[in-house]
Amino acid sequence: VVTLLTDYGLDDGFAGVCHGVIAGICPQARIIDLTHGIPRQDVLAGALVLAGAIRYMPAGVHVAVVDPGVGSARRAIAVASGDGRRFVGPDNGLLWLALHACGGIVEAVEISASPLRLAPVSATFHGRDIFAPAAAHLAAGVPLSAAGSPLDAGELVALEPPRARVADGILLAPVVYVDGFGNVQLGATNDEIEALGLEPGRSRVELALSVAAALDDAARAHSVTAVSATARYVRTFDDARADELIVYLDSAAALAVAVNRGSAAYRLGLKPTDVVRISKHPC
Amino acid sequence: VVTLLTDYGLDDGFAGVCHGVIAGICPQARIIDLTHGIPRQDVLAGALVLAGAIRYMPAGVHVAVVDPGVGSARRAIAVASGDGRRFVGPDNGLLWLALHACGGIVEAVEISASPLRLAPVSATFHGRDIFAPAAAHLAAGVPLSAAGSPLDAGELVALEPPRARVADGILLAPVVYVDGFGNVQLGATNDEIEALGLEPGRSRVELALSVAAALDDAARAHSVTAVSATARYVRTFDDARADELIVYLDSAAALAVAVNRGSAAYRLGLKPTDVVRISKHPC
Amino acid sequence: VVTLLTDYGLDDGFAGVCHGVIAGICPQARIIDLTHGIPRQDVLAGALVLAGAIRYMPAGVHVAVVDPGVGSARRAIAVASGDGRRFVGPDNGLLWLALHACGGIVEAVEISASPLRLAPVSATFHGRDIFAPAAAHLAAGVPLSAAGSPLDAGELVALEPPRARVADGILLAPVVYVDGFGNVQLGATNDEIEALGLEPGRSRVELALSVAAALDDAARAHSVTAVSATARYVRTFDDARADELIVYLDSAAALAVAVNRGSAAYRLGLKPTDVVRISKHPC
Repeated sequence: VVTLLTDYGLDDGFAGVCHGVIAGICPQARIIDLTHGIPRQDVLAGALVLAGAIRYMPAGVHVAVVDPGVGSARRAIAVASGDGRRFVGPDNGLLWLALHACGGIVEAVEISASPLRLAPVSATFHGRDIFAPAAAHLAAGVPLSAAGSPLDAGELVALEPPRARVADGILLAPVVYVDGFGNVQLGATNDEIEALGLEPGRSRVELALSVAAALDDAARAHSVTAVSATARYVRTFDDARADELIVYLDSAAALAVAVNRGSAAYRLGLKPTDVVRISKHPC
Repeated sequence: VVTLLTDYGLDDGFAGVCHGVIAGICPQARIIDLTHGIPRQDVLAGALVLAGAIRYMPAGVHVAVVDPGVGSARRAIAVASGDGRRFVGPDNGLLWLALHACGGIVEAVEISASPLRLAPVSATFHGRDIFAPAAAHLAAGVPLSAAGSPLDAGELVALEPPRARVADGILLAPVVYVDGFGNVQLGATNDEIEALGLEPGRSRVELALSVAAALDDAARAHSVTAVSATARYVRTFDDARADELIVYLDSAAALAVAVNRGSAAYRLGLKPTDVVRISKHPC
Repeated sequence: VVTLLTDYGLDDGFAGVCHGVIAGICPQARIIDLTHGIPRQDVLAGALVLAGAIRYMPAGVHVAVVDPGVGSARRAIAVASGDGRRFVGPDNGLLWLALHACGGIVEAVEISASPLRLAPVSATFHGRDIFAPAAAHLAAGVPLSAAGSPLDAGELVALEPPRARVADGILLAPVVYVDGFGNVQLGATNDEIEALGLEPGRSRVELALSVAAALDDAARAHSVTAVSATARYVRTFDDARADELIVYLDSAAALAVAVNRGSAAYRLGLKPTDVVRISKHPC
């Protein structure tokens, strides 16, 4: 199994070309398109989608390409994880969360000058020329050590996703992902919910939104309130009325904001890097 | 063969995750993506696309998920059809038209609490947790009776698509689907065309559009005319000039409105639930 | 291997239906979706994407459908190329560039009335009724001669993509394709760059844009300058600052205009058929 996650989109044939390269090198590989619709050059979104999906993928070779630094000195890497998977992609943090969800880094190699790459390597399409061929050869049985030169795990670029803070009964949670239904995933989990003292379906939650340049800028996050709204913390959409704003734990166990049969992103104007302020309703 | 039809889109990885779940349970399954682009939560559009496509699919397990009631008390079902196919999806009418195009309902089970489901089941992503695993196990040879508890065919939710009416030489036809080319499919077939006394390529047809809340509201459908235009009833696009408005029988044998090398939906502002009034041109 | 390239999009199930038809006729076929996102009815864009991608595809049966003349007298064809591939599609020039990139035309047959087609053939969906079945039977071992009636290679519709001109140190290059990142591919290659006397990363290039009805109208291309900008000719994105306008050789070895971490199409308002005027910067 070879899985692909990219920001190539499906219109231009880039994803199809990667399929062709892999099928040519390893005809027996089964290719699963995790998605090619990561927002262009959004490494964090790619890392989150990959980490959330990986445990539902059969163990195999997992290619991810969201690569604003293509053609630069950024490394191309192949990495074995603790649970026996192999990951292939740019060393820009994209693989980081998934690697840590899969038992951590066991072995890593730099494949920028891999003997397995296509020649000549273009300056702008490493998915085709470096990542897809490496993945196909790994799937065909080539050992990781033969794909490139060894790297120390500590040399890899780390990715630290923005995380929520709870203080004085107020949760400041960054928007990390907006899906196609307009459901807004926050950088928070059940832990923060418990810290607020909420119980599913029992609490009303007052929701006020602050747009801050970054979560670190906590003071501004408090002061710049663009929209405020009231939501209910529930277990699922069906606990809400049509069009009601809700907060819930989504299918990736992350805290999320949604509108039942509507789009929370549209109603509240939320996008990644916005910060949502959540506090318990007084009554 | 396992086919998938959903409204998940392809950007967020939901469809890819379903592929992963199926491939993990039943590695030998061949998965065909019928489409993941059904308009969000549009059960009727999903039902029509599935019913129109099913006879071109090899017999297998056919998953469909357009599921605004996910997490509610609505049933999740698996159904065997008269021609030996198995269908899996929510019991909200989505499977209804396809089941009847495939020989009707032979056996049905409720799989909401199926022993084949993933644990824990999320409240919002039953495609991953209930439907994909059930389909994969069925494809791997598990009998329908082992997938859930038996249901009477009469308990299933039916779906009655809006249909056209002909009276006094006037056809009132609901828009049921608009495709990506802007071709507008109506809830009418060759029968209604014959009732109007039209012959392909021989008749000029006057087309007047009425936007009505529902087709039942026939009086308003007559009176509220937003746009009127003249079209020609033809066999195919090539019988029309570039940019000409035409009425024809489409590849699903439904009456449709199109603009040759253009978009009828855009030109006429048509969308599903609109009603189109068609009558024969006097001269 | 059967590859598919169409302008069907992925929303309406048209591509999925073609998969189903092929899998039904030739279950052992591996289907690769090169893309279904060619701009609607844009034969030139489809021809360019197919020709650029084909050498990365395993040899097989290559279906392409961008077919504004569906239902007309235009031929449906199947063609064997010099390198042993088979191509299937409408005879409107769509296959032309790929055929010539693959060793030219060795054998051609007209398949409009092929014994392999589905019956009845719809007037508007030949992908399903003619092209997919023909491809599947070819993939299953049916010889080309059994798929239709012989055609002389000289009878096929040729496609001549617009090409650049260099004169007096000025390059006039047509926009031939805009990808999803907003990178703008021109109808020019390294030859024209050398004719201008440019070296990668060493030259500053002044870029002036003219919007002309066609490249043949060279006089107007000179005179109508809508936007002018300065760009640098580089090897790759990383040689440029963020947001800098660059000219480079893209992964298909074509000259292209891009904005590092941005969209050149958006910034310059470029679209296919526009003509870009490029000359060396005086200093």
